Amino acid sequence: MPYRALEPDEIVYLRDIVSPDRFSTGESHLELHARDQSHHGPYRPSGVVWPLNADEVSRILSYCNTRRIPVTAWGAGSSLEGNPLPVHGGLVMNMSRMNRILDIRPKDFQADVEPGVVYQDLNERLRPEGLFFPPDPGARATIGGMTANNSAGTRTVRYGATRDYILQLELVLADGEIINAGSRSAKTSSGYDLVDLFVGSEGTLGVVTRATVRLAGAPEEDSAALVSFNDMVNAAQTVFEIMRTGLAPAAMELIDQSCVALLNREEHLGLADSPCLIMEFHGPSRAYLGEVLDLAREIAEAHGGGGFTAGLGRAERDRLWHARHKLGEIIIRTNPGAPPLSLDVAMPISHLPEVIASAAREVATSGLPGYIFGHAGDGNLHVVFCGREGNHDDWSAIERVNTMIVKQVLDLGGTATGEHGVGLGKRKFMDQEHGASLAWMKRIKYLFDPNGVLNPGKIF
Amino acid sequence: MPYRALEPDEIVYLRDIVSPDRFSTGESHLELHARDQSHHGPYRPSGVVWPLNADEVSRILSYCNTRRIPVTAWGAGSSLEGNPLPVHGGLVMNMSRMNRILDIRPKDFQADVEPGVVYQDLNERLRPEGLFFPPDPGARATIGGMTANNSAGTRTVRYGATRDYILQLELVLADGEIINAGSRSAKTSSGYDLVDLFVGSEGTLGVVTRATVRLAGAPEEDSAALVSFNDMVNAAQTVFEIMRTGLAPAAMELIDQSCVALLNREEHLGLADSPCLIMEFHGPSRAYLGEVLDLAREIAEAHGGGGFTAGLGRAERDRLWHARHKLGEIIIRTNPGAPPLSLDVAMPISHLPEVIASAAREVATSGLPGYIFGHAGDGNLHVVFCGREGNHDDWSAIERVNTMIVKQVLDLGGTATGEHGVGLGKRKFMDQEHGASLAWMKRIKYLFDPNGVLNPGKIF
Repeated sequence: MPYRALEPDEIVYLRDIVSPDRFSTGESHLELHARDQSHHGPYRPSGVVWPLNADEVSRILSYCNTRRIPVTAWGAGSSLEGNPLPVHGGLVMNMSRMNRILDIRPKDFQADVEPGVVYQDLNERLRPEGLFFPPDPGARATIGGMTANNSAGTRTVRYGATRDYILQLELVLADGEIINAGSRSAKTSSGYDLVDLFVGSEGTLGVVTRATVRLAGAPEEDSAALVSFNDMVNAAQTVFEIMRTGLAPAAMELIDQSCVALLNREEHLGLADSPCLIMEFHGPSRAYLGEVLDLAREIAEAHGGGGFTAGLGRAERDRLWHARHKLGEIIIRTNPGAPPLSLDVAMPISHLPEVIASAAREVATSGLPGYIFGHAGDGNLHVVFCGREGNHDDWSAIERVNTMIVKQVLDLGGTATGEHGVGLGKRKFMDQEHGASLAWMKRIKYLFDPNGVLNPGKIF
Repeated sequence: MPYRALEPDEIVYLRDIVSPDRFSTGESHLELHARDQSHHGPYRPSGVVWPLNADEVSRILSYCNTRRIPVTAWGAGSSLEGNPLPVHGGLVMNMSRMNRILDIRPKDFQADVEPGVVYQDLNERLRPEGLFFPPDPGARATIGGMTANNSAGTRTVRYGATRDYILQLELVLADGEIINAGSRSAKTSSGYDLVDLFVGSEGTLGVVTRATVRLAGAPEEDSAALVSFNDMVNAAQTVFEIMRTGLAPAAMELIDQSCVALLNREEHLGLADSPCLIMEFHGPSRAYLGEVLDLAREIAEAHGGGGFTAGLGRAERDRLWHARHKLGEIIIRTNPGAPPLSLDVAMPISHLPEVIASAAREVATSGLPGYIFGHAGDGNLHVVFCGREGNHDDWSAIERVNTMIVKQVLDLGGTATGEHGVGLGKRKFMDQEHGASLAWMKRIKYLFDPNGVLNPGKIF
């Protein structure tokens, strides 16, 4: 599919659907929507529109579908696999103005939100209710973007991914039809599960204009712990044992020595200069947490863990998580002119130690800056590589390592992407991962979007 | 669609695919597959086949698809909405011989099973590993049937429904194609979620021939508690408060006075003659459970609960749950010649008290035997009515109450079925529940099964 530029009459028509201040073909706006937080792109759209409601989204899609104009929905642009980049031009539909929290029903553990709501803002609003929306990808992601990518994060090991928190979706389909999928009942066996079909479909089947999300009760008590290891494999083994013992950590983050060094330097954390495991536990009482932490310590020390620090105060804990959440950003800042490729694989957790061992070997061999960390309790591993922009040698080395690790994980029954989505970078692995079922995904795509106008060039 | 009888040449062909002892057109076999545990039917198939593997399933489906012979997969026949009844004749495919547990990978919290495995048998095998498969519909259901219906049960309030435990499915599609959907990674954002599309599709999109299921760690400690109330609405209010406080019960069963009377008489439980709440809590220690039970007692007593009995020993607890699980069967036995209609609605939990109040009024007004109970922590309510077979007055009264309650729940944002599936009885509510998205479910059905041979007459 070639680049699709908007014709002058199309620009006039689209601008009229919204209002002049919510449609742009200005250079700076096009440039701002040409890159997400990955190494992909730039791919500039031909226009950007900021709809305010489902009706506008419907009219835009209906028109674009008729004219065969690609439409790519955009949340916060914080994705890591090029997911919202308009690779075939056309229109980017920026959902950030649809950012109202429409209703909070604390008695039902539910909220209705527009897709442009940033999840941290929702959590801020929920705090007085003693509730929270658990998925936490870290960046200031929107709930629409998180739904599209089935985003996850540090707390997924206990609370699940975005998929587990979406009850009902208002969706606009390719031809402008507006449908509601799902139920406000937390439990249902009524008909086909369209909600889960749209969650993780990366804007290729429809555009979310409203979501009813499930909320969780904020834990009574929480406690974090830190422990250092002489190598990543021992740390991974500890993760596995803690999961097996059923201690149900709320987070279980593994970071390698190079990440620790960065955090010490940039965030003044003062961690030991070695791989590190950051854990968090939630529970109903201090006594309960004390017991859990003792067990975690026992397991860690049996696997060579040292310097176990538990019972961190709230301030120190917040500082630790704040630093951990900034890790991606710090890596980018530390390697100017070298955009990151963030490898994102997930696997049955027993295989984590061996995959970490290969990843560490490959990073060492490549000679490139490479940072290994992961939401280890989920079997979700990241390796961030920084290659100099335009440097063919760097990028072919990165591509080689990326492909090697993904293929290893697929051979072990894992997945090419645990939480970043397929976007642009993981398309080439879809055949190996899905086999014959990939053709059925394509048929579903064709059923919902026969003209291929919704985020073309992604997933497949 | 008229009744489709198998032609003599078709019988010969199908018998040859399997072996003579695994194909039958005998009266007794046809009769055995004409009824599930609901009031629906009888609907006799024209033949029954017992495949042994995916290849046989594929050859049977491929042939039936060409000949337009309806094929309805059958698990244990324990469904409650006519889900596996061959309303248009043709072939019933009984999956009970595909009942091997193929692999248990305790380190990954996973098992691979054939669809005919009964979930209690899997749990028996898992016990020494300290693991279990949490969904527990009660009857001796098969994992294939549970997948088809997205079955749930008493422990869903804490552990989730079947959907939450299916990682990967081997499926045979209408034309005989065999595909694998999903991943062995617990976490994935790779492509469209075909697994969740098939879970709950009631055998209308394909036939499951293997499932990789997720397992949970068996809790270190558990404790049950019983408390009585002077009316169901106070009991429902207690449920709601316990959920809101985040005590995370592993079960939260509400049973009305008529159920209590049955259980006392048939199972000699000696409960107080009033509505009753049965709770179970899981936790890491006795101390933790003690604290949780104290809080639960406080909440129950604030809502008029009396006779709070906690810390039941394992034997008494097992006796209680055993009795609760037999409730459906006891109701059937107590009302001979009057098959049950088991109403199954679910809603946002804040609405439970009002819906229970209307249900109780309607039961009283109808003058028919009616038993109200539910997995109340999920907002999932059941009302079992027994109508005399062939008695028009009984059944029109039951139909009226059923419709009234379902419509009330749909108006409150709930669902026509929390866990029994749509089957035959809930089809008439699908338009109201799903609106425009129902047409998309039909299009998906047509995409996967253009000739409509898979379990025709269900859901839509």
